[in-house]
Amino acid sequence: MKAPVNIGIIGVGRIGKIHAENIVSSMPQGRLKAVADVNLTPEIEAWAKNLGVASIEKDPAALLADKNIQAILICSSTDTHADFVVAAAKAGKHIFCEKPVDLTVAKVAAALAAVKKAGVKLQVGFNRRFDHNFRRVREHVESGAIGALQLVKISSRDPAPPPAKYSAVSGGIFLDMTIHDFDMVRFQSGSEVLEVYAAGAVLIDEAIGKAGDVDTAIVTMRLANGALAVIDNSRKAAYGYDQRVEVFGSKGAAAAENDAPSTVKLSTETCVMAEKPLYFFLERYKDSFVVEMRAFLAAVVKGKPTLVTGEDGLQDLRVGLAAKLSLAEKRPVKLSEIPSK
Amino acid sequence: MKAPVNIGIIGVGRIGKIHAENIVSSMPQGRLKAVADVNLTPEIEAWAKNLGVASIEKDPAALLADKNIQAILICSSTDTHADFVVAAAKAGKHIFCEKPVDLTVAKVAAALAAVKKAGVKLQVGFNRRFDHNFRRVREHVESGAIGALQLVKISSRDPAPPPAKYSAVSGGIFLDMTIHDFDMVRFQSGSEVLEVYAAGAVLIDEAIGKAGDVDTAIVTMRLANGALAVIDNSRKAAYGYDQRVEVFGSKGAAAAENDAPSTVKLSTETCVMAEKPLYFFLERYKDSFVVEMRAFLAAVVKGKPTLVTGEDGLQDLRVGLAAKLSLAEKRPVKLSEIPSK
Amino acid sequence: MKAPVNIGIIGVGRIGKIHAENIVSSMPQGRLKAVADVNLTPEIEAWAKNLGVASIEKDPAALLADKNIQAILICSSTDTHADFVVAAAKAGKHIFCEKPVDLTVAKVAAALAAVKKAGVKLQVGFNRRFDHNFRRVREHVESGAIGALQLVKISSRDPAPPPAKYSAVSGGIFLDMTIHDFDMVRFQSGSEVLEVYAAGAVLIDEAIGKAGDVDTAIVTMRLANGALAVIDNSRKAAYGYDQRVEVFGSKGAAAAENDAPSTVKLSTETCVMAEKPLYFFLERYKDSFVVEMRAFLAAVVKGKPTLVTGEDGLQDLRVGLAAKLSLAEKRPVKLSEIPSK
Amino acid sequence: MKAPVNIGIIGVGRIGKIHAENIVSSMPQGRLKAVADVNLTPEIEAWAKNLGVASIEKDPAALLADKNIQAILICSSTDTHADFVVAAAKAGKHIFCEKPVDLTVAKVAAALAAVKKAGVKLQVGFNRRFDHNFRRVREHVESGAIGALQLVKISSRDPAPPPAKYSAVSGGIFLDMTIHDFDMVRFQSGSEVLEVYAAGAVLIDEAIGKAGDVDTAIVTMRLANGALAVIDNSRKAAYGYDQRVEVFGSKGAAAAENDAPSTVKLSTETCVMAEKPLYFFLERYKDSFVVEMRAFLAAVVKGKPTLVTGEDGLQDLRVGLAAKLSLAEKRPVKLSEIPSK
Repeated sequence: MKAPVNIGIIGVGRIGKIHAENIVSSMPQGRLKAVADVNLTPEIEAWAKNLGVASIEKDPAALLADKNIQAILICSSTDTHADFVVAAAKAGKHIFCEKPVDLTVAKVAAALAAVKKAGVKLQVGFNRRFDHNFRRVREHVESGAIGALQLVKISSRDPAPPPAKYSAVSGGIFLDMTIHDFDMVRFQSGSEVLEVYAAGAVLIDEAIGKAGDVDTAIVTMRLANGALAVIDNSRKAAYGYDQRVEVFGSKGAAAAENDAPSTVKLSTETCVMAEKPLYFFLERYKDSFVVEMRAFLAAVVKGKPTLVTGEDGLQDLRVGLAAKLSLAEKRPVKLSEIPSK
Repeated sequence: MKAPVNIGIIGVGRIGKIHAENIVSSMPQGRLKAVADVNLTPEIEAWAKNLGVASIEKDPAALLADKNIQAILICSSTDTHADFVVAAAKAGKHIFCEKPVDLTVAKVAAALAAVKKAGVKLQVGFNRRFDHNFRRVREHVESGAIGALQLVKISSRDPAPPPAKYSAVSGGIFLDMTIHDFDMVRFQSGSEVLEVYAAGAVLIDEAIGKAGDVDTAIVTMRLANGALAVIDNSRKAAYGYDQRVEVFGSKGAAAAENDAPSTVKLSTETCVMAEKPLYFFLERYKDSFVVEMRAFLAAVVKGKPTLVTGEDGLQDLRVGLAAKLSLAEKRPVKLSEIPSK
Repeated sequence: MKAPVNIGIIGVGRIGKIHAENIVSSMPQGRLKAVADVNLTPEIEAWAKNLGVASIEKDPAALLADKNIQAILICSSTDTHADFVVAAAKAGKHIFCEKPVDLTVAKVAAALAAVKKAGVKLQVGFNRRFDHNFRRVREHVESGAIGALQLVKISSRDPAPPPAKYSAVSGGIFLDMTIHDFDMVRFQSGSEVLEVYAAGAVLIDEAIGKAGDVDTAIVTMRLANGALAVIDNSRKAAYGYDQRVEVFGSKGAAAAENDAPSTVKLSTETCVMAEKPLYFFLERYKDSFVVEMRAFLAAVVKGKPTLVTGEDGLQDLRVGLAAKLSLAEKRPVKLSEIPSK
Repeated sequence: MKAPVNIGIIGVGRIGKIHAENIVSSMPQGRLKAVADVNLTPEIEAWAKNLGVASIEKDPAALLADKNIQAILICSSTDTHADFVVAAAKAGKHIFCEKPVDLTVAKVAAALAAVKKAGVKLQVGFNRRFDHNFRRVREHVESGAIGALQLVKISSRDPAPPPAKYSAVSGGIFLDMTIHDFDMVRFQSGSEVLEVYAAGAVLIDEAIGKAGDVDTAIVTMRLANGALAVIDNSRKAAYGYDQRVEVFGSKGAAAAENDAPSTVKLSTETCVMAEKPLYFFLERYKDSFVVEMRAFLAAVVKGKPTLVTGEDGLQDLRVGLAAKLSLAEKRPVKLSEIPSK
């Protein structure tokens, strides 16, 4: 086995911590050498020491300057992603960047150019591609089991809405939440989006509407391969996190249902009860975070392309922007209307 | 118990025969007195005799003239429906008319006016409202179990496309097939459609495209109560008849899965296999035909409103016409753009 | 098509009525000519007239004497079954007899001898063999899909216990309730029972225990083909009628789950709720009564063996008697200990 | 947080390695200080170094002599368990011992006496008590949701039989495989077994029969609380590892189905296909090994009783011995016939 990849993580909030713990506990190909957080607290320091992290920094630049670090994980706030991608690329580091790379096409395109110039790997954190259910659906598509693709149908509903003020900084539902589903449509279909029509409504929290966003949406897409796709979103499903994908083709359909904490059914005088879906993305996609990081390290070690590229991040963003425009102008929007750089 | 309602059926093709047999075998409130078919064959005569039908006619007028008949079932070809509704209304008969009443708003409106003037009952054959699964979903909506309605999601896929030439006379996928789903959206939501956006594609049979129709579609709707609705259609699901409805609200969701011939699962070295859905509408909606006819007879006997009115038929048609226009003009269409009489 | 079989029914309580209505509504091969009931009431007379029954009698002998009746359905009380079988056989009628033929081997054997001598058909009312789920399981066994049979596992639980006093006349749980499951073991395995071990308990109603019976039981069987079988019974499942069969073999397993009134799932803040199983045997096995009667008429018309023979009834009874003996003597009982005539 | 418990593992074959990796990756309350294996290989040494284990020994005595070790995990071969338990107890170590403690009551009783005298904790490795599905079933029992317990029903089938020669050293199916199910009956019911009847057959591998064992079995139990229990076992389920538990009571039933690698269903022209159950115990019970070890460490740290005691191990063994006797003597065996020390 080759020597493990030395890794530095910029930003160790919730998702940064998850990646850190996964690397330490179950990835012999990676060694977590350093973490940096601009809000370095004693708690973070204690946590990092316990994990055996050698360098615990406040300044991310320290990680970029460390010659022994080969890969950088960017888990800081969204507005800093693109700049860190550029800086890490210039420093010759391979990059794993949480999604989205940025909310503007221009900054994403510039970041991709820097990555290309530096010749480093870039993987964007669309972890759902690595989920056991959705990979299995994709396997059925790739194997030809469902024949020629005709429809992709996604239900994606959160257990609770974010604070309304978050809508402003997050870019709104299509860039924050649905962008995962746009990526899933592209992943499952292996095709690009040509046209988007978005219908939205404010049915859960009026404050979200006042912030200029919607909390409920149906997005229809026409794909380059001729197929159609549809996503329904809600910011609040009373029963928890609802994440289902169905792909339909000329020979059949593959459909993933929700995961639950157990398979137990309780039958009583009233009804037959099963458990609600796993609560939210940390539980539901727990294993996918491990698999995506293993895939990133494998790409680095073997010098192969990453499975979710910067180009994926760019295209997903463009679909999201098209959806926003469609909602605003109440008309279908062609993806060619959205700049690509 | 009151005396049974004497019934005459105009048109005893496939669906007319089903209604006839259901009445004879399991509806004490109805008595099948007469059938008429312009293509009266010896087979039909033998079948009707065996059922104990007293009058077997070639001319539908004979049934309308029969003073002992209180209710007429119109099961002839679509282009004759509206005229028979008018004639039956004038003859003072209660009317059960297979869907659609007509493909034009004008003729439907005229038929409804005749019905109103005559003061007779009219029920349109949207049998799916009486299906055990969809009624149960509706019960959960009505009981408040799912809270305030936010999304209606329907998958409706046929096992095999009709001949391409049928598209011309049927009015196309939205007036022939999706119209059932439009009615289901209105039934489940208890609301009217305000706006429709239809995306379509020809992915199954090019001849359907040449006939000016599509075989695959996604239709998004905005409802008067603020909720959104979405339907996905395919003319050909390899695994059979796919009929699922999901209603989502502030307190939860109610979802109906397909019915299958048995609940048996076969576990082998390869996988765990369950049966495909029931093949097509005759099997899948078998019981619903009984329940809808019982409901019609009950409305007649008790003098109460029918559960699927002529107004329902008219509104469903308008939604279908809006979908056609949306597809043709590639834009969302407001229902107010479609005439209502 | 051959002329329909003229049928007379002796005993038109609940089950007799079901057979009568099924024949009239959906069996062109049978014509219900006569019914007899020793407790003939005005209600029964009205019901029979409405069905178009020509002869409505108090004395069953009238049906046996009617030369135009070819088949007799014996739906009277259990203690009269064997005598009517003998009488009907002597009268040259084909016989459908509700289960059990009798509670003693001697009377059943005598009845079978009379049937054999007369050369008439006899079908015993083990309707579950005709159930859509259990037939499908059997098809998987017969097709070889599960390989060589190794285990048969049955859960059979009623929604509510009969009155304790009923235990006395019914022969107890093994002859009244489990006998259906013994027949199912023999049907699914295509093998005979060699040895029985029955464990029982009184957990639901003490009065049942005082009447010398149990209300909860587990019965283990060793079959002639080497396989094992197990049945668990309860007289009272709070969630309704629980009827599941699983057959396990060298290549896999086929398992039937319960049927429910709808496939709808309601997801709420609490849990995901499905409907309880169909309430009791009239709902759960509704279709099976139609299929078994069609099979009987087909056997009569085509002169082929019936699918549930008198021999089946006799063997099921012997297994039941072995289970009773096992429970009483707290030891496994060989079927050879039970007389066969 | 208290200082972590220093742990030594005796025997690092498959299961010892799993415990070691779980402790290192996800149990801050435990620190893996030492491992010992009588068959110490370079591979084991490399593996242990990589995990950061300080002491890697060939002689288990070194671990018992280490004053800094507070807890010993006994993961060596079964025949050494009891002696190590005694030695570890004498050395004042808390003990986690893989199941079974021994195949004889006398040695287990002696080991328990040593543990009691030393006043140390002992947890036996019945990991299934910590499985997410079975814990959920137990929660429904404990909460009263199913009312008074009446039936426990377990299906437990392996994907492939062990080599026939293994039967000799393992004590046979009841002491090797079914013992987990006996423990599950006791866990779910919270009651002891009073009487056992075991039926067995050799249907999979004749060599197993020649070794004096069976490969297929049905075991019926009468419990101290009056309930009945039944287990069906097979050494080879073609579709993989089949692990289901159902508990039935006066108010309802709780039933756990198998876990599968994904929830994806593939619908094709042939059927609807789901995935097979997770392959074997390492996959199926992966999380339970983590939870049981956390529970052990928590018991040590907090000075509370362990959740699976030595007494549990002893009683499970006695039930297994009763089942062996029942099979041999073809009769129900009372647990009081089996010595308890």
